[in-house]
Amino acid sequence: MAELIERVGTRLLDDFYAVRRRSVGLAEPLSEEDCCAQSMPDASPVKWHLAHTSWFFETFILERHEPDFRPHHPAFRMLFNSYYNGIGDKHVRAQRGLITRPSFDEVLAYRHAVDERIAALLERDSGAEIGALIRLGLQHEQQHQELLLTDVKHLLAMNPLLPAYRDEALPHARQLPPLEWLAFEGGIVEIGHDGGGFAFDNESPRHRQFVEPFALASRLVANGDYLAFIEDGGYRDAALWLSEGWDWVGVNGLQHPLYWRQGEEGWSEFTLHGLQPLDAARPVTHLSYFEADAYARWADARLPTEAEWEHAARSLNMADDVPRGLHPNATSGSGITQLFGDCWQWTSSSYAPYPGFAPAAGAIGEYNGKFMCNQYVLRGSSCATPAGHARASYRNFFPSSARWQFSGIRLARSC
Amino acid sequence: MAELIERVGTRLLDDFYAVRRRSVGLAEPLSEEDCCAQSMPDASPVKWHLAHTSWFFETFILERHEPDFRPHHPAFRMLFNSYYNGIGDKHVRAQRGLITRPSFDEVLAYRHAVDERIAALLERDSGAEIGALIRLGLQHEQQHQELLLTDVKHLLAMNPLLPAYRDEALPHARQLPPLEWLAFEGGIVEIGHDGGGFAFDNESPRHRQFVEPFALASRLVANGDYLAFIEDGGYRDAALWLSEGWDWVGVNGLQHPLYWRQGEEGWSEFTLHGLQPLDAARPVTHLSYFEADAYARWADARLPTEAEWEHAARSLNMADDVPRGLHPNATSGSGITQLFGDCWQWTSSSYAPYPGFAPAAGAIGEYNGKFMCNQYVLRGSSCATPAGHARASYRNFFPSSARWQFSGIRLARSC
Amino acid sequence: MAELIERVGTRLLDDFYAVRRRSVGLAEPLSEEDCCAQSMPDASPVKWHLAHTSWFFETFILERHEPDFRPHHPAFRMLFNSYYNGIGDKHVRAQRGLITRPSFDEVLAYRHAVDERIAALLERDSGAEIGALIRLGLQHEQQHQELLLTDVKHLLAMNPLLPAYRDEALPHARQLPPLEWLAFEGGIVEIGHDGGGFAFDNESPRHRQFVEPFALASRLVANGDYLAFIEDGGYRDAALWLSEGWDWVGVNGLQHPLYWRQGEEGWSEFTLHGLQPLDAARPVTHLSYFEADAYARWADARLPTEAEWEHAARSLNMADDVPRGLHPNATSGSGITQLFGDCWQWTSSSYAPYPGFAPAAGAIGEYNGKFMCNQYVLRGSSCATPAGHARASYRNFFPSSARWQFSGIRLARSC
Amino acid sequence: MAELIERVGTRLLDDFYAVRRRSVGLAEPLSEEDCCAQSMPDASPVKWHLAHTSWFFETFILERHEPDFRPHHPAFRMLFNSYYNGIGDKHVRAQRGLITRPSFDEVLAYRHAVDERIAALLERDSGAEIGALIRLGLQHEQQHQELLLTDVKHLLAMNPLLPAYRDEALPHARQLPPLEWLAFEGGIVEIGHDGGGFAFDNESPRHRQFVEPFALASRLVANGDYLAFIEDGGYRDAALWLSEGWDWVGVNGLQHPLYWRQGEEGWSEFTLHGLQPLDAARPVTHLSYFEADAYARWADARLPTEAEWEHAARSLNMADDVPRGLHPNATSGSGITQLFGDCWQWTSSSYAPYPGFAPAAGAIGEYNGKFMCNQYVLRGSSCATPAGHARASYRNFFPSSARWQFSGIRLARSC
Repeated sequence: MAELIERVGTRLLDDFYAVRRRSVGLAEPLSEEDCCAQSMPDASPVKWHLAHTSWFFETFILERHEPDFRPHHPAFRMLFNSYYNGIGDKHVRAQRGLITRPSFDEVLAYRHAVDERIAALLERDSGAEIGALIRLGLQHEQQHQELLLTDVKHLLAMNPLLPAYRDEALPHARQLPPLEWLAFEGGIVEIGHDGGGFAFDNESPRHRQFVEPFALASRLVANGDYLAFIEDGGYRDAALWLSEGWDWVGVNGLQHPLYWRQGEEGWSEFTLHGLQPLDAARPVTHLSYFEADAYARWADARLPTEAEWEHAARSLNMADDVPRGLHPNATSGSGITQLFGDCWQWTSSSYAPYPGFAPAAGAIGEYNGKFMCNQYVLRGSSCATPAGHARASYRNFFPSSARWQFSGIRLARSC
Repeated sequence: MAELIERVGTRLLDDFYAVRRRSVGLAEPLSEEDCCAQSMPDASPVKWHLAHTSWFFETFILERHEPDFRPHHPAFRMLFNSYYNGIGDKHVRAQRGLITRPSFDEVLAYRHAVDERIAALLERDSGAEIGALIRLGLQHEQQHQELLLTDVKHLLAMNPLLPAYRDEALPHARQLPPLEWLAFEGGIVEIGHDGGGFAFDNESPRHRQFVEPFALASRLVANGDYLAFIEDGGYRDAALWLSEGWDWVGVNGLQHPLYWRQGEEGWSEFTLHGLQPLDAARPVTHLSYFEADAYARWADARLPTEAEWEHAARSLNMADDVPRGLHPNATSGSGITQLFGDCWQWTSSSYAPYPGFAPAAGAIGEYNGKFMCNQYVLRGSSCATPAGHARASYRNFFPSSARWQFSGIRLARSC
Repeated sequence: MAELIERVGTRLLDDFYAVRRRSVGLAEPLSEEDCCAQSMPDASPVKWHLAHTSWFFETFILERHEPDFRPHHPAFRMLFNSYYNGIGDKHVRAQRGLITRPSFDEVLAYRHAVDERIAALLERDSGAEIGALIRLGLQHEQQHQELLLTDVKHLLAMNPLLPAYRDEALPHARQLPPLEWLAFEGGIVEIGHDGGGFAFDNESPRHRQFVEPFALASRLVANGDYLAFIEDGGYRDAALWLSEGWDWVGVNGLQHPLYWRQGEEGWSEFTLHGLQPLDAARPVTHLSYFEADAYARWADARLPTEAEWEHAARSLNMADDVPRGLHPNATSGSGITQLFGDCWQWTSSSYAPYPGFAPAAGAIGEYNGKFMCNQYVLRGSSCATPAGHARASYRNFFPSSARWQFSGIRLARSC
Repeated sequence: MAELIERVGTRLLDDFYAVRRRSVGLAEPLSEEDCCAQSMPDASPVKWHLAHTSWFFETFILERHEPDFRPHHPAFRMLFNSYYNGIGDKHVRAQRGLITRPSFDEVLAYRHAVDERIAALLERDSGAEIGALIRLGLQHEQQHQELLLTDVKHLLAMNPLLPAYRDEALPHARQLPPLEWLAFEGGIVEIGHDGGGFAFDNESPRHRQFVEPFALASRLVANGDYLAFIEDGGYRDAALWLSEGWDWVGVNGLQHPLYWRQGEEGWSEFTLHGLQPLDAARPVTHLSYFEADAYARWADARLPTEAEWEHAARSLNMADDVPRGLHPNATSGSGITQLFGDCWQWTSSSYAPYPGFAPAAGAIGEYNGKFMCNQYVLRGSSCATPAGHARASYRNFFPSSARWQFSGIRLARSC
């Protein structure tokens, strides 16, 4: 038994180091200046991501379980608290880019110290409670790995020099397979986490929903498809848009997805590989809910509900095991493809608690529940999601105007 | 048959005149100045409501069905268009209070002319299409009657003199009955309009939903209940609030419902009867979704979903046949009370299209569908809703921060 | 002696009634709705002007000098206080248009009551102190008469129907005389009020300034002149503008003076006579300091300083005795014309205290002194200034972006 | 003669290298992260200052005078253009902190390349035009050296860790000498640059002004003096403030100078030496014009005009030859002290062109003239001004609400 625990503890520790190392690795192509800047209040500096994910372990595990706990630095508790009112004061979100001290190296030292203390704690106590908290901290850190990439992409895109995160051209895709419709029967379906492996609290409890028969598109909407929408006047026709979306288009003078640019030689797209000619076969990405919804209306379709999406993914036994780069790939398969690993897929479902949902007690309960208002659920995962992080019941969520995530469109239809 | 149509036409015309007269009657206690002012962009002047409801009949009926149609005034098409992009230009919403011309009398003349032309049209053509459009126009006008009252209440409340709309004290209520819980079985339920009588497009199609067993509170949350929440520090405890709600409380420095005031002699409440001592037994009203949700969490309960609410109302065979004044009344009954005629009840349901929902073709299709985003559904009706206007399937909706409607709280619980 | 005082008191009373009557007369072409609306925070409703000018007499004279003073209405002290912190609370400036009560008639009753009480007070005490305060109150009311006209013009211009304040066409002017330059010698000049007749505190003390030789344009810049500036790209050439002015042009997308409109049939101008074809010979008006300064630079000239302007006016013995209508007139004279009665003339002088300036003690000292910052002085008077109100030493002042006054351009040059 | 030119050229080159080296030296205590961040739109990153001052030499000298000029980097022309519309596009001011590329080292390389090209150019052509432009570029760079220090101070003050620029305590000063008044005769005085040595265009032409007799305070207002103002309720008494200043105090909830903090152990002040106990004898600094004006009114005095200040400095033969640290020093002298080297001194003079002022032709003419609106003149120099940079005719200027410069108060009185 002791041996088993030791082995579990060892695997957990391996996972712990792997995830922690990957975060630091993501910063490697960047300068210290790149890691400190904040391009908008919604985005955070890379250095802040590296510090906050360590703060999570320090605050929710070490502070509670380490005998004679002393903070690594007394100011960090406030400085790297993202949104946990239960923990106390928080630094102003919009001013994260002004935290030039602690330095990048001091944050790496913070990470190193937290790693050692977690390892030492785990050696002493590899019980279920600490294990579960460490698993949560790792899943949390993986979420920040995705944000780190989308935030740094946003920063680099604000620089007129348009620097690349990875200096390597994106290969152009072959032919784009036609979009096909796959039908699913309706009835009472079960959605939510089924109890195997890790899941966030917002995926529970598993529960029943009644779903009418529907069809799902075989692939994501591609750049070429979306270009047809633009060329057909999609951004100028009020009848295609939700009222709030139409105001948003007007106030911001929008005419195309976030990172698209129209030049003399046609359309290009800013990517983590720098500016690249627009590839008609790759999925369109960095769209708001408003744009996804307007496109679907134009295409005589609609967005799926999250129950439809999850039911389809589960009935097809799909898992997030897709290899990924730094940009969504074109599909080459048949059947329902691109559920995972390319673009998050906007659903028409407002982010709401499942029937019977109860957040954890204390500050950790602020993780998900308090955001269940005025946001929409995205399903699947993206090229920036760490491999293996997502699953069929996974619920991502963003406000309807958010565009800086790798968000795309999966069409649905009622049968 | 011709006789039947004539009788139907006559009843429709009677209804038409009744509704049209009531709108003008609502303006009677007000001066022309009162009728012209606009207290915030969300609210409209009384005069604008009187004009816009006539515009609706002129634009959607006369313009399409009157031979040799000529507009009453060429500028009115733009001036009194609320939000129909399909009709063309609209006057700036926030500047409705600057439209001192046309004068109040000119707007009455506009109403009169439209009334006569509708009557003449109906004499010539009492067919189903025109009949349905007139019914829609009347329901539309009833919605504006409610807005007229809540908008003018907001205006009067901004005046330091706190003038009353009706100069007559509100009687204080007797004892408040204790709040009881009534249980409902779960299972597949049908919600949506069942086809009898008028309904808006957003109530269709009728469809199935799966509902878990739940309980509903026997009455609305009363002022006395809500006062306990305030005195328990409800507005100062982040743990009770949605994240966006907590920001909203902080930015606006909120400590109580919209029209409450704390003075040396205790709490009072601004009503359409002027400033009145707070009545502990009457329902708390003018709450945002954020406040309703926070109160429910504090009370160890939750808001109902719209499916739960409708299922309960329908299984109890409740209809909107309650007499009303200008302020929500205290309850005196037993069982589920106050479903209709006191306060709209926030549900936890985001305003979304029912499965298979399809808006009407053309500009009239902008009536409801384009607002199905970032709003929450309220069910029931309020003291300001015209008697008989609402029903079990009726869906009202407002953004989560809106407080100037007669919105209140019906608690629910999972069983 | 007693008789003399009686006669002085009588003349003062005559003046008092004349000014008071004129204010009410200005509201005659307007409806009660017109008189209640507020088109922007900088402007006030007509009804507010009528009430505030009465408040001035009540607060600064009756309250201090009437035995057993009782306020006309206890809330008016706050409601109609414009900006006197020394008096106490003030109603929010941007919400003056929401004061639908007191009604227009109640404000007229307020005026009437104040008039009677002032007359009764004057009968008892026609001493110098009260006489001086009444004179100040009348000059104050005349300033508000001008604001009343420019504020109502702004309101009517916001209405798509473009209603006229006076329903009567503006005659088109004859030929425009060429602009000539008249030279003035430099040296030490005296500026400021010379002690004869009424003057505001900001015109004192009279003092010496050193002025270099300069020339002044014989007439105001005319619409035709300004059109040439526009057609030469004046609004698109950054080199002509102050930095802050260039930002202001860009943010607001400006291309012409406030009330100009370009249509298919050429340029027109909204006036108190309604929309009129642009008259090339009339003075250009409703310009900001930024526009006046940019035009002067384009014309290879500059704006005069206030010392230059006053020195010129005084050495030519010019007084404000020009007949006026509701719009600036074209000039027909020779020599320096249009100093008074057409458009206020922006000077390059920042509004600052004269050496030794000391405001009055108490709240009345807030009249002028506290505004001596970030504003520019305008000299002369306009068509909306009551006849006889202005003089050579008169100092009007507005922020550099203000355009809704009858402001124009008098060019100057260094010799 | 050739030898003389060579020597002149050599001295210029020595000066050039000295100034250029000093800029880089100022960045030495800072990390690359510190040098990249921007704390507010008014402030710029240190790296931007280093790049922009090089851009000035490249754009105004190399581009015009270097044969076969090729830009160091084609994007820098836009990226490091501060406000010269005549040069073309400019990067958005508020986004300077997002320019993580070019890196700090690349900017140093840019500086080095410009230095070498300027030296080479000077070797070929040491004529008057290039010499004058280089002198202008060096004076420009010295201005940015001061901004670099005040901008980085602002950034460090935004960091909750309050890091010091220089890690060394500030010695507390001895006794504060009493404030004395020194009288100056009035009459016609000459102000403006007298032709010897370098001056900016805004100091010309030298011209006459008439000045009344006045007295100037012997020293700057000290922290101890200002504390008495605060303790007397200075920030709560509307009667002391300009109207716009009172609004500014209210909206921002101000109660003390920018970098003061009140803690349990009394007042402290954030300085470039980190947080220090407030030294009563040192000059109060980081005040807005509004605060300086309010303090003067409270002290029964006023701010000097710029003519008074310059006349006094010149008649006392004062020059900017004071040794300085990184914070204003307490005075120890007698007579008029602290004119230079401690705090800039707000004058009551709006920043305006001198009679006959003409900016240079072309983009370089945008240096000063276009800012002559809604700003106030400060005279003297501060501890952050490079030694020898300022002079009696020097005109610094900032908007009335600016506080992040080393601005203080010199009182004046009319005699």
